[in-house]
Amino acid sequence: MPDVLENLKDLFKKGKSKMVLLVADGLGGIPHPDFDFKTELEAAHTPNLDRLAQRSVLGLMYPVNYGITPGSGPGHIGLFGYNPEELIIGRGVLEALGVGMALGPNDVAARANFATRDEQGLIIDRRAGRIPTEECVRLVNLLSENIGEIEGVQILLKPGKEHRFVMVLRGEGLGDRIKDTDPQKEGLAPYAPEALDEASQKTSRVIKQFLEKAQKLLSTEKKANAILLRGFSKPPVLEKFPERYGVRSLAIAIYPMYKGIARLFGFDTPELEGTFENEVEYLEKAWNDYDFFFVHYKDTDKAGEDGNFKRKVECIEYFDQFIPRILELKPDVLVITGDHSTPSLLGSHSWHPSPVLLFSPHAGCDEASRFTERECRKGYLGHFPARALMSLILANGLRLGKYGA
Amino acid sequence: MPDVLENLKDLFKKGKSKMVLLVADGLGGIPHPDFDFKTELEAAHTPNLDRLAQRSVLGLMYPVNYGITPGSGPGHIGLFGYNPEELIIGRGVLEALGVGMALGPNDVAARANFATRDEQGLIIDRRAGRIPTEECVRLVNLLSENIGEIEGVQILLKPGKEHRFVMVLRGEGLGDRIKDTDPQKEGLAPYAPEALDEASQKTSRVIKQFLEKAQKLLSTEKKANAILLRGFSKPPVLEKFPERYGVRSLAIAIYPMYKGIARLFGFDTPELEGTFENEVEYLEKAWNDYDFFFVHYKDTDKAGEDGNFKRKVECIEYFDQFIPRILELKPDVLVITGDHSTPSLLGSHSWHPSPVLLFSPHAGCDEASRFTERECRKGYLGHFPARALMSLILANGLRLGKYGA
Repeated sequence: MPDVLENLKDLFKKGKSKMVLLVADGLGGIPHPDFDFKTELEAAHTPNLDRLAQRSVLGLMYPVNYGITPGSGPGHIGLFGYNPEELIIGRGVLEALGVGMALGPNDVAARANFATRDEQGLIIDRRAGRIPTEECVRLVNLLSENIGEIEGVQILLKPGKEHRFVMVLRGEGLGDRIKDTDPQKEGLAPYAPEALDEASQKTSRVIKQFLEKAQKLLSTEKKANAILLRGFSKPPVLEKFPERYGVRSLAIAIYPMYKGIARLFGFDTPELEGTFENEVEYLEKAWNDYDFFFVHYKDTDKAGEDGNFKRKVECIEYFDQFIPRILELKPDVLVITGDHSTPSLLGSHSWHPSPVLLFSPHAGCDEASRFTERECRKGYLGHFPARALMSLILANGLRLGKYGA
Repeated sequence: MPDVLENLKDLFKKGKSKMVLLVADGLGGIPHPDFDFKTELEAAHTPNLDRLAQRSVLGLMYPVNYGITPGSGPGHIGLFGYNPEELIIGRGVLEALGVGMALGPNDVAARANFATRDEQGLIIDRRAGRIPTEECVRLVNLLSENIGEIEGVQILLKPGKEHRFVMVLRGEGLGDRIKDTDPQKEGLAPYAPEALDEASQKTSRVIKQFLEKAQKLLSTEKKANAILLRGFSKPPVLEKFPERYGVRSLAIAIYPMYKGIARLFGFDTPELEGTFENEVEYLEKAWNDYDFFFVHYKDTDKAGEDGNFKRKVECIEYFDQFIPRILELKPDVLVITGDHSTPSLLGSHSWHPSPVLLFSPHAGCDEASRFTERECRKGYLGHFPARALMSLILANGLRLGKYGA
C-alpha cells in the first residue's frame, strides 16, 4: 500500500477543532444475489447518512493491503494511522483485551482452551465438546483458587465463552517467545511450552508448573481434562496515539476488545456499557474535554459475521438515526467508515475496501447521492490505505502546518 | 508505487477454486484521432467482454510504475505478483527464451548480432545489412559445427530473425558480469568481453576464444564478418510461482518467450502451437488438473506494435468470441487484462495503465456497460499496481485467510 508520512509531529498545530472517527465495525459489504445485487448499505434506508454524503467527500479505504482480510487488531491499527504490516497485536493480548483484562507492559497473555485428552494423554477434542460457559467459569475458578502464584509470578485467569479462557502471567523477567502447546489437531499430545529465546526461560518454567498443577486439578473431569495454550504475547511497544498526533483522545466503545485496543494506544476509555445510544450520550457529555473522538459501533460486524443481510441492514438503519445528534455537536471533522468489510454474503471479515465518508468544511464534496460502496468508488478521496486516514483527519481539522518552506 | 504484502504464505488456505489470468498482450490503448478518438477496445464489437464487464469489477493497473513503459519481462513479473523494480530478467536470458532455448540456472545467455567490419576492424554496420534469416541460419550452423566446447564450456547457438542470434554458455563457474562487446554505434571496434567481477573471469576467457574462432570462420563473409554480443545474463533466482502462492499452476502460451518466462516462474508449460483457439482447447482439457491458469494471447500486441488500429480491433473481436467458452468452465475467479498497453497510435509498448476486469462471485460489480479503458477508470478496483493483482485473485478465490487476530 502507498506509504504515508510517518512523522507528522513537526507539522502539529494547536487548535480547537473537534475530530470524530465513527467506526461501524465491518460496515462494507458486497452485492448480494438474493437482494437484487445490493449491498447492505445500498439496501438500507439511510436518509441521514445520505444527506451527509451529499456534503462530504467519499472514498474506498484498504485496511491493510490489496486482497488482505484483517482481523480486528490490524483493522484498528490502520485506522489509528499505524502500519498494520509492522505493528502486531499478539493473539493472547487480543483475547485478554476481549475479556476485559487490563494488561501491563510486562504481562504475558495467552489464549487458552479446555480440551479432552485420552488415557495416553493424546488430545481427542481440542474444544472439550464446547462445554457450556458456566462450566468454563466453574473450572477457571477451580484453577484460580488453587493456583495463585508460581515463582513469584501471578497467574491471572479469566473465562471466555464455552471452552475458551485467557491466561495472563504478571511478574518480572517474562519473555513471550513461547511455543504454542496447542497441537492444532486431534490425536496428538500437547506440545511443551518451550522457550524460543533466552529471555523466555522463566515464562516457560512457570507455564510448565502451571500445566502440571492444572492437570491434577482437572484429572477427574470427563470432558475438560486438559488445557491448550497459544498466542503467547506481550502488549506491543508503541507511541501512544495522543502523543503521536498531539490531540486529547477519547475512545467510546461497548465491547471489551475495542476498549482494550484503544487503551493500548493510550486513549482515555471509559468503562461504558449499554447500546450505541449510550455511546452517543457519552460523546455529548465529553465533547468539551477532548479533541479527537474514536466511537465504535459493533453490531454491523456481528450481523455480517452471522451472514444475516437483513439484520445488518437494520443495524445500519439504527446507526443512521444517530447521525443528526452527532452533527449537532458541530464536529470540524467527521469520518464514518469501518475497520474492515464484513459482507453478509461471506459471513466473515473480508478483503474488500471500506467505504469512507469525510465531512468537514475544508474537505469539499462529491456528487454522491448516497453513502454506499459504489458511490464511494467514485469519490474524491479515491482508493487509499487506512493508515493515511489520520493525516487526512488532522489536515481537515487544521491541525497540520505546512511541510517544507 | 504502492507496496503489497510480500509474504502471503501464512495466509494460504486450501481450496478447490479455479483461477484464470487471461492476458491479452498489449491490450490497453489510447484514443486515436483517426477513429473518432476511440481506443481499440472502444471501437471493437465485444458483446461477450461487455456482458462480463457488467458482472465484474474493473480498474486500471500500472505494470511497473507511473509513466514507465515495461518490456514483456517486467510486464509479466508484475502480473505474477513479483516486484519488477527488483526482479530483473536479463536481456540475454529473455532473447534465449524468445527463441525457445531452455535455460539451466548456471547458463549464461547473450544476445548476438552479426555485423559488418572493415579492414581496420571497425564496425560499419551493426546489423550486417539485416541479412535474410536463412543466411543467419547458415552462419549459425557454420559456427556451431566448428565450435562445440571451450574450456569444457558448451557453446549453444540458435538463430533468430535476420542478423540476430542467441548464444548460451553452459558449464561450471560462469559469472555473467561481462561488458557488452557491442559498441552501440558504427565507426568503433567491438569492445573486449571484459569480466566485471572475479566470478566472471572464466566466462570472459571463453567468450574471447569463441570470438577469435568465430572471426576466422566468418572472415570470408561479405556482410556478416563480425559478431556483437550484449546483455550477458543468467536466469534470475526467484521463488517459484506455485510455491509462492500455493497453487498448481499452468501456463498456456504459443509464443516461445511467454512459455519461457512462465517456465522461469515454475509454471507447467506445454509445448503448444497454433492459435488462441488451441490455447482455449488446452485450457478445457487441463481444467481439472490445476488451480491457477495463466493464458496468454499475443496478437493484440503485434497489431498494436504494427500501429495497425483496425487489425488490433479485429484481434480484440476474435478474442471476445472465446469468452463464453472460458466462462462455461465456471472459473471462481477470471481476470482479463494486459501485461502492458500497446496503443496502435504509438505503435509500441506504452506506460498507460492496463484495463483490468475481475469476475468472481465474491468481487461485487461496477455499473460498467463495457470493458474499455474509460469504464475501467471508474471501477471499484481503482488504480493499482500490477503486482497487487495476485493478492486480489487469491482473495477472491478464497485462498487467503485472515491477517492478524
